[in-house]
Amino acid sequence: MIEVTAFDWVPDVARGYVKDLRVRWALEEAGLPYTERLIDLPQKLGPEHMQRQPFGQVPAFNDGTVDMFESGAIVLRIAEASPALMPADEAGRARVTSWAFAALNSIEPFVMNVSWTELFWPDEPWAPGYLKKAREMLDLRLGQLETWLAAREYLEGGRFTAGDLLMASVLRDLERHDTLPRFPAVEAYFRRCTGRAAFARALAAQLKALATGKAPEAVAG
Amino acid sequence: MIEVTAFDWVPDVARGYVKDLRVRWALEEAGLPYTERLIDLPQKLGPEHMQRQPFGQVPAFNDGTVDMFESGAIVLRIAEASPALMPADEAGRARVTSWAFAALNSIEPFVMNVSWTELFWPDEPWAPGYLKKAREMLDLRLGQLETWLAAREYLEGGRFTAGDLLMASVLRDLERHDTLPRFPAVEAYFRRCTGRAAFARALAAQLKALATGKAPEAVAG
Repeated sequence: MIEVTAFDWVPDVARGYVKDLRVRWALEEAGLPYTERLIDLPQKLGPEHMQRQPFGQVPAFNDGTVDMFESGAIVLRIAEASPALMPADEAGRARVTSWAFAALNSIEPFVMNVSWTELFWPDEPWAPGYLKKAREMLDLRLGQLETWLAAREYLEGGRFTAGDLLMASVLRDLERHDTLPRFPAVEAYFRRCTGRAAFARALAAQLKALATGKAPEAVAG
Repeated sequence: MIEVTAFDWVPDVARGYVKDLRVRWALEEAGLPYTERLIDLPQKLGPEHMQRQPFGQVPAFNDGTVDMFESGAIVLRIAEASPALMPADEAGRARVTSWAFAALNSIEPFVMNVSWTELFWPDEPWAPGYLKKAREMLDLRLGQLETWLAAREYLEGGRFTAGDLLMASVLRDLERHDTLPRFPAVEAYFRRCTGRAAFARALAAQLKALATGKAPEAVAG
């Protein structure tokens, strides 16, 4: 049986955005049932979880054969056994892997730099100047993605794959900002991906899990 | 035959750090010969290359069956066929994939934020304040990696894998700074990985390739 480790509570700003969502989405697309192991914030930094997730994050994943961390790696593991997330031919499968890394290494760091600054450090004296640079770098990458997607429904092969799942997940942070409307092909692609029924089920499952826990009485630094 | 696309020239600051090095290193570890397709800076943004690498970067990779981009994806492709880079058991292989994504998504963005600011924007008015925050975030992740590596020679399974190759590649940018000595287990691990003969051969091959081209007469923006 597949088990996904996720949080039982996070602050409002993170609800619907915790990275176990990517794994839940992949499992929904693949039609695979799973159980949850929900942990609270003190447990996430405890020795048992740190042994499974060396950076004290979620998700972690166990399917009886493998014990894994990192949402990108887990989504690829699920995809390798699911025709709903990956084509059958070797060349096509390799392209999905390329796009998985592109989403998490060529796009996400630039999204994260803008998002984290706007969410967590907007009043720091360095924030306005740094944000201008960070937005420039993000716009460069989104412009390249816009060119790629201008004549395509999905990243590769005319069909939804695990690469799209990860790319759309990464782009989701930009919904909070005014960024996506400036890249209409990216925005249409993003709506196409997150409009899938499996995404809605995954999001509902995360929000339900996050309603089971309680805010810690005192949150450390 | 395997073909690796790389640059024929980059500025001094990037020599020995272009990401085709990771692919060359993996091929050297696997004992696989390869040919080079060297491109210059105008070609990297030309339509032919952008069709192969949507973000105008290197490396790109072709082995006769697959055409790929993203160094992490390519290194995993090479590793899947090479016992030198990945164990044979399914659980061990899944851990290598987890560490590949950990290197490129949980560590590299934080390394990059410090490195790029110090290298490219040290005199921006926002740089000192932002760098303090960026170094804090990097130190948090390196501290977690230090804990993980304190009792381990390599990330997983007591042996060098593609996960170590990518992690050491990511840490390499920190050699330019005073960061690594504060994390002695990470530093010893880093020296263990980059002390391998295959790494030295890969580095020499990149530097040789970069000596074949010429600086563009005018570098745009």
